[in-house]
Amino acid sequence: MSPLLIWGYWRSVLARACHPRFSAGYCGASGRQGCAQEPPVGACELRGELDRFGGVSVRLARLGALDRLDPAAFLKGLQAAIQQWRSEGRIAVWLHVPILQSRFIAPAASLGFCFHHAESDSSTLTLWLGEGPSRLPGYATHQVGVAGAVFDENTRKILVVQDRNKLKNMWKFPGGLSEPGEDIGDTAVREVFEETGIKSEFRSLLSIRQQHTNPGAFGKSDMYIVCRLKPYSFTINFCQHECLRCEWMDLNDLVKAENTTPITSRVARLLLYGYREGFDKIDLTMEELPAVYTGLVYKLYHKELPENYKTMPGMD
Amino acid sequence: MSPLLIWGYWRSVLARACHPRFSAGYCGASGRQGCAQEPPVGACELRGELDRFGGVSVRLARLGALDRLDPAAFLKGLQAAIQQWRSEGRIAVWLHVPILQSRFIAPAASLGFCFHHAESDSSTLTLWLGEGPSRLPGYATHQVGVAGAVFDENTRKILVVQDRNKLKNMWKFPGGLSEPGEDIGDTAVREVFEETGIKSEFRSLLSIRQQHTNPGAFGKSDMYIVCRLKPYSFTINFCQHECLRCEWMDLNDLVKAENTTPITSRVARLLLYGYREGFDKIDLTMEELPAVYTGLVYKLYHKELPENYKTMPGMD
Repeated sequence: MSPLLIWGYWRSVLARACHPRFSAGYCGASGRQGCAQEPPVGACELRGELDRFGGVSVRLARLGALDRLDPAAFLKGLQAAIQQWRSEGRIAVWLHVPILQSRFIAPAASLGFCFHHAESDSSTLTLWLGEGPSRLPGYATHQVGVAGAVFDENTRKILVVQDRNKLKNMWKFPGGLSEPGEDIGDTAVREVFEETGIKSEFRSLLSIRQQHTNPGAFGKSDMYIVCRLKPYSFTINFCQHECLRCEWMDLNDLVKAENTTPITSRVARLLLYGYREGFDKIDLTMEELPAVYTGLVYKLYHKELPENYKTMPGMD
Repeated sequence: MSPLLIWGYWRSVLARACHPRFSAGYCGASGRQGCAQEPPVGACELRGELDRFGGVSVRLARLGALDRLDPAAFLKGLQAAIQQWRSEGRIAVWLHVPILQSRFIAPAASLGFCFHHAESDSSTLTLWLGEGPSRLPGYATHQVGVAGAVFDENTRKILVVQDRNKLKNMWKFPGGLSEPGEDIGDTAVREVFEETGIKSEFRSLLSIRQQHTNPGAFGKSDMYIVCRLKPYSFTINFCQHECLRCEWMDLNDLVKAENTTPITSRVARLLLYGYREGFDKIDLTMEELPAVYTGLVYKLYHKELPENYKTMPGMD
C-alpha cells in the first residue's frame, strides 16, 4: 500500500476524533460524497512509509491528533489498514509508538502485533504478514563486558581485584559493561580506572568469551572481552563499593593461583607467553577502517600481519 | 518496602476495581477502619519483590484483577507506592507489563518511568529513585554478525560471494546475523550453508569488528566476526535471493582483488600467512568452560597456548 492509499483509512478514523467539524467532509455520517482530497492544515497526519523490503512503517509520533483518538477507534482503523496491506502483498508492518501513546499497544497486540524492542520513550511493534515464520531482523542480542589485564612489563606485575558481594573470593581483572556506543578498549580503560584508580592505555585484545541466556543480561547473551592494557599510573585507589581487594600481583603468582577464574588463569598464561616470547604471539591488534556502504568508521581486531604480508600484492 | 507493605497500596486500588463488595472492607468510603488483613481467595494479587540491589520489581502479570482496573486508578496507586518506596530508600522500580496490559504504560511514564526493554509480549519499565543519574544496568547493546572464511587447503581456494541488492559488487565471505542463543561458529556454518550450499566445520576465530550506531542494527552497535571454516562439501548451490555470484576463488586472487571489502582483504592476507606459515599464527581457538558463579557453560576464544604453557605451574 502506498502512503497515499493508507492515508485514506487513517484520515477517516482520525478526522472523527480530531476535527468533528470536518468529519463529514471526509467520510462522515452526513452522506456527502465529495470528500476533501487533502486534509486541512493542522489536521492529523499519518505516514505509512514503505521500505525496500516490502514492509510498511507507521510512526504514531507523526499523528498529531492521536491525543484524542480512543483505542477502540484505533483498533478499527488498524484492522482495516492491515486488510489493505495484506491485499497489496506487504510482508510486514512496523508500528512505532511514543510511550505516552502506549494505550494503542494492546489494541495492536490483539491484532497480532508483538514488541520488537523498546527503549527510553518509545516502543516498536511488528506484525509479520508474509508467508511462513517471520523473517524480520531481530534486535540486539548481546551485552558486551570488557576487562583490562593491566600488565607492567618492568615489574612483571599484573593488576587484579576481588569483587565484593560474590560467594567466592576469586582474583580477576577489573572490568564491566560497555556503555552504548563505547569502543572495547575505552570500556577497559574506563572500568579499570573506576574500579582501581589506575590509569592505563589500550594495547590489544586477548580473548573473547560468549555465553548465552545470562540472567545478568536479562536472558540475552553476553560477550566478555579481555584487553591487554599498559599502566601509566601505579598507585591503587580502589572502589570500596565494587572491590574487596585490589593489588599488583606477580604474574607468576597469578598463573599459579588457585582462587582465580578459568579465564583469568588462561589470560595470565597468555601474558606469560607473550612476556617471554613477544606480545605479538598473543595480541589481536586494532585498526580503524571506513565501512564500504555506510561511511561509518569501525575498529577491526586480528593477529597483526607481518610487514611483508601487509604490502605484498599476492603470492604464486 | 517489603512486599507486604506495598500490598497495602495495591489492595486498596485493586479491591475497588475487582471486588466492589469487598472495597469497604479494605479502604473504601464506608469509614470502617478494621480492614481485612488478607485478600479474599481469587482477589487481585500484587507482589513488589525486593532485589539485592535495593530495587523493587512489580510484575503486572501477577495482578489477576488488573483487567478491570482503569489507568487513572492505576496511576493513583502507583503514585502512592512510589512515595512509599522513596520514603523507604528504595533506589529503583522495575515494572513488568504484559503487552495486553499496555494501557498502564502511559500512566507510569507520566510518573517518570521509561522503557528499559520490550520483547515479544511484554515490556519492562524502570524508574530511578536513587541519587544522581541512573545506575541501572542497560539492555543488550550489540547485534552479532558472523561470516565464514571457508578455505580449502588442498586447492588453495576460498569461498566468496557478492551480495545481491548492494550498490557495489564486492567479493566478501558469506555470513549473517546470529540468532538468539546461537554460538559464533554455529552461525558461521549455518549462514555459509544457507547462502552457498557448502557444508563446513568451525576451525577458529580470525577477526572481530566493532561498529556503532548502525542503521541496520536499529541504531545499536554491531559486532562482526570472521571465522575460519573447513569445507566438507564443494558443490556450490547458492541462494539466488541473497547472492548475485558465488565461487571458489584462488586465495591469491582474493588477496590481489580490488573489488573486495577492507575486512575481506585483510582476512585473505591473514589466511595466506596462516596457509604458508601455520594456522596457529592466526587462529583464535575455542575452548568450552564452566562459569564460576552461574554454572552455565561458555566458549572462550584466544591464541592457543603452546603445550608447555598449558601445563606449567608458573615461571621463575
